[in-house]
Amino acid sequence: MVFKLADLARLFNGQIRGDPDVEIHGVATLDNAGPHDITYVTNQKYYPALSKTLAGAVILTANNADKCTGNAFITETPRLCFAQVATLFSPPIPFEPGVHATACIADDATIAASAWVGPQAVVEAGAFIGNDAFVGPGCFVGARSVIGVNTRLVARVVVNYDCAIGGNCLVHPGVVIGGDGFGFANSGSAWLKVPQLGGVRIGNDVEIGANTAIDRGTMGDTVIGDGVKLDNLIQIAHNVHIGDHTVVAACVGIAGSTRVGRRCAIGGQVAFSDHLEIADDVYIALGSRVTNSISEPGNYSSSLKVEPAEKWKRNLIRLSQLDETAKRLKALEREIERLSGARKT
Amino acid sequence: MVFKLADLARLFNGQIRGDPDVEIHGVATLDNAGPHDITYVTNQKYYPALSKTLAGAVILTANNADKCTGNAFITETPRLCFAQVATLFSPPIPFEPGVHATACIADDATIAASAWVGPQAVVEAGAFIGNDAFVGPGCFVGARSVIGVNTRLVARVVVNYDCAIGGNCLVHPGVVIGGDGFGFANSGSAWLKVPQLGGVRIGNDVEIGANTAIDRGTMGDTVIGDGVKLDNLIQIAHNVHIGDHTVVAACVGIAGSTRVGRRCAIGGQVAFSDHLEIADDVYIALGSRVTNSISEPGNYSSSLKVEPAEKWKRNLIRLSQLDETAKRLKALEREIERLSGARKT
Amino acid sequence: MVFKLADLARLFNGQIRGDPDVEIHGVATLDNAGPHDITYVTNQKYYPALSKTLAGAVILTANNADKCTGNAFITETPRLCFAQVATLFSPPIPFEPGVHATACIADDATIAASAWVGPQAVVEAGAFIGNDAFVGPGCFVGARSVIGVNTRLVARVVVNYDCAIGGNCLVHPGVVIGGDGFGFANSGSAWLKVPQLGGVRIGNDVEIGANTAIDRGTMGDTVIGDGVKLDNLIQIAHNVHIGDHTVVAACVGIAGSTRVGRRCAIGGQVAFSDHLEIADDVYIALGSRVTNSISEPGNYSSSLKVEPAEKWKRNLIRLSQLDETAKRLKALEREIERLSGARKT
Repeated sequence: MVFKLADLARLFNGQIRGDPDVEIHGVATLDNAGPHDITYVTNQKYYPALSKTLAGAVILTANNADKCTGNAFITETPRLCFAQVATLFSPPIPFEPGVHATACIADDATIAASAWVGPQAVVEAGAFIGNDAFVGPGCFVGARSVIGVNTRLVARVVVNYDCAIGGNCLVHPGVVIGGDGFGFANSGSAWLKVPQLGGVRIGNDVEIGANTAIDRGTMGDTVIGDGVKLDNLIQIAHNVHIGDHTVVAACVGIAGSTRVGRRCAIGGQVAFSDHLEIADDVYIALGSRVTNSISEPGNYSSSLKVEPAEKWKRNLIRLSQLDETAKRLKALEREIERLSGARKT
Repeated sequence: MVFKLADLARLFNGQIRGDPDVEIHGVATLDNAGPHDITYVTNQKYYPALSKTLAGAVILTANNADKCTGNAFITETPRLCFAQVATLFSPPIPFEPGVHATACIADDATIAASAWVGPQAVVEAGAFIGNDAFVGPGCFVGARSVIGVNTRLVARVVVNYDCAIGGNCLVHPGVVIGGDGFGFANSGSAWLKVPQLGGVRIGNDVEIGANTAIDRGTMGDTVIGDGVKLDNLIQIAHNVHIGDHTVVAACVGIAGSTRVGRRCAIGGQVAFSDHLEIADDVYIALGSRVTNSISEPGNYSSSLKVEPAEKWKRNLIRLSQLDETAKRLKALEREIERLSGARKT
Repeated sequence: MVFKLADLARLFNGQIRGDPDVEIHGVATLDNAGPHDITYVTNQKYYPALSKTLAGAVILTANNADKCTGNAFITETPRLCFAQVATLFSPPIPFEPGVHATACIADDATIAASAWVGPQAVVEAGAFIGNDAFVGPGCFVGARSVIGVNTRLVARVVVNYDCAIGGNCLVHPGVVIGGDGFGFANSGSAWLKVPQLGGVRIGNDVEIGANTAIDRGTMGDTVIGDGVKLDNLIQIAHNVHIGDHTVVAACVGIAGSTRVGRRCAIGGQVAFSDHLEIADDVYIALGSRVTNSISEPGNYSSSLKVEPAEKWKRNLIRLSQLDETAKRLKALEREIERLSGARKT
């Protein structure tokens, strides 16, 4: 596939500075790009590389165009334009529809004629695989579950019974959708399982990263909104709701019945307690602990910062004494007030 | 399945306030319940919904019965009674025993006549699948491993060689039991693997959540006690012992050779160092770090709390100065003592 | 397999104190060892057991030899010697080369004659399985991916398309290599996927623990160096580089484009921000948060420490007031200076 730089600029609303006729064959990093690759820059860490790149063109903002000695594709949204250009150069790999000979399909499962079910996959009774859907090698789709139009289960994905995934979703290997929620009642001497009778309902345009787990609801459903993007190794507990277009980085855990709003961005390894309400447009920093509901949009954090271990150790001892320290400070304030008063008198 | 409310009260020791003859067909949430559903309430967040529910009956404590305008099932243990009622309405799904045509079973593996081995499953030499056990689609049971009576491996579970799982266990998709422990010896220029020669021994009535990993012991076994409940995405390292009836929430990591007592409750994303001893009846809050042994039962925490990011940032700078601050405070105390003394003199 | 203690000492450069002719049949823990087992001790927690062990021999340092009442194998590196002895007693289990009848192999995939592809495995077009490699039950090797000489994918491992794993690697069940990196561009109303066009390149002698995920690069590759050891449930994001011989404990998350140096040791549940540079020989304590680059070797930490919950709660309130507290302290210092000055005047 080859496009002239001018064609790309026309398609994605960019301005060109340099040669509009340079032929672009693909995308590459600033470091590796050759004279027919297009690349982009937004992170200032990479500005110095701009004067050395061999790229055929660089997508960047007007502010940075001067730093670039080659051809520039100027836009206010370089990352978005790059994503559009890269998507143009890497269209989805087409597949032949059908069912692989080694797949096990229940008699009354429905597989759309345009769908593909790969080797070693299992589709149980009453399941429905929509048009153009892709059920990759080793996937399991349980009884009565629905895989929406054009959704792709890459490989070895488990969708347990009575779950529904919308259209245009991408689910990476090792994902488990619809495991039981973690609910037990104390019977005195042991834990009695609370049956997990709900399902999981996932919207359209959702991406779910490798080895992420989304549990089924206790009675209602666990719900993932449209356009949500979940990274790898995330835990979504029973009855959680995640609002449309929220993004969640890897290793996050969201405990039972917590509701996260729309357009939130959750950093890696954040932990949420159960039964919280998080507003729309909330951003939470890497590794924070969220133990209370958040009602206002904005940036939140309880992320710490590594220090040389010896220094950290001394501060950690003081952290353990904070309440006592605060009391000593209060006592000093009183004493000084007394001394000052005494002196004034 | 239909029960009169009076029948349920008789079965599970409840008192009825309202119509004992109302027919109950199933369970539902307070919000969704209809006139033939039973529901329950314990969390005060949901008290207001009690006056609006259409539920046929609500399980609650005597204290809350007045808040309920419909039929009440009164008990001191509403959550436990609900679990019992819900279990009554959702008996285990029966399965036909046998071995699916696509499963690979070693010649000398033993599969009980009442057990089921599903499609694409693999059972290696010398493995033993007990009575009424269920080895779901795509599961792998390694050489000489034992799956106890009535235990269910839902789908795509890996039980590596020489591991034993007790009876009445439930193991969710993606679980890996018996991977090698993480043990290496420094040979100067590289890491030499320490062979992991032990196994994993899991008791009865254990539940293990999706994508959790339990490593085999180095020489002895990694041991999970009876009635333990492990949530999703948990790491149990080699030689760990977990005492009976302990519950562990998602994303927890327990490092090598640590022993956790009985009836403990570990919050999500807690991290344990290696070689610790944790007493019985210890409760640890979400996201805490446990770097020392705990010898007394009780509640423990090092869980932080998100704040608006700007405020957190200022406090974080001060946290980094704590030791210095403490020294300044000490100096002030001395100075004031001196001043006070001077004044008194 | 039987060795005299004298033979082991000769093979691994130990000194014997006691009976050189005792026959050793295997390894065991200090507690469980019998008269023909060899064991080792390094952790002082286990010194008291030295006088009670029934072991045929104990590997330990000269300093500890006096604590041992039985036969001693003396060396300055007991753990390394133990690893060597245990490796001697547990040679790799040999396998018959070939391809299992239920495996699905693309016509133009290359499987070395000495390799094994197990039941239910899938190997796609253009993939290459090297000499003596082992592709276990249920594994998936995507198009054009390479599995190096003598590398073992234990079971149910996913190696997505265009990834390369070196020689002598060991990859545990549930690992996902080559899932898409987590990259999206904000299009205003939604998130547009940034195509993930790179691969994953893994060196020689690498071990990867159960359910760990390593994402493919955005344009270049995600790179894991030679001799790296990754524990279970680790997240390695796109474009990350990990230097040779670095070890990473379980549940760690490393965000996009971060580079970790050589010979580092990363504790469990550490979280790294994206685009960081971590020097060689950096050690980071359990559960720390790394949000800045680290340019100097050494020990780093932001690990907290559980306290009794009531005490922690009081200190946590003070933590939230630290900036205010620091200002009060500053005010006090000024006031005292004024008082002191006044007094002196």
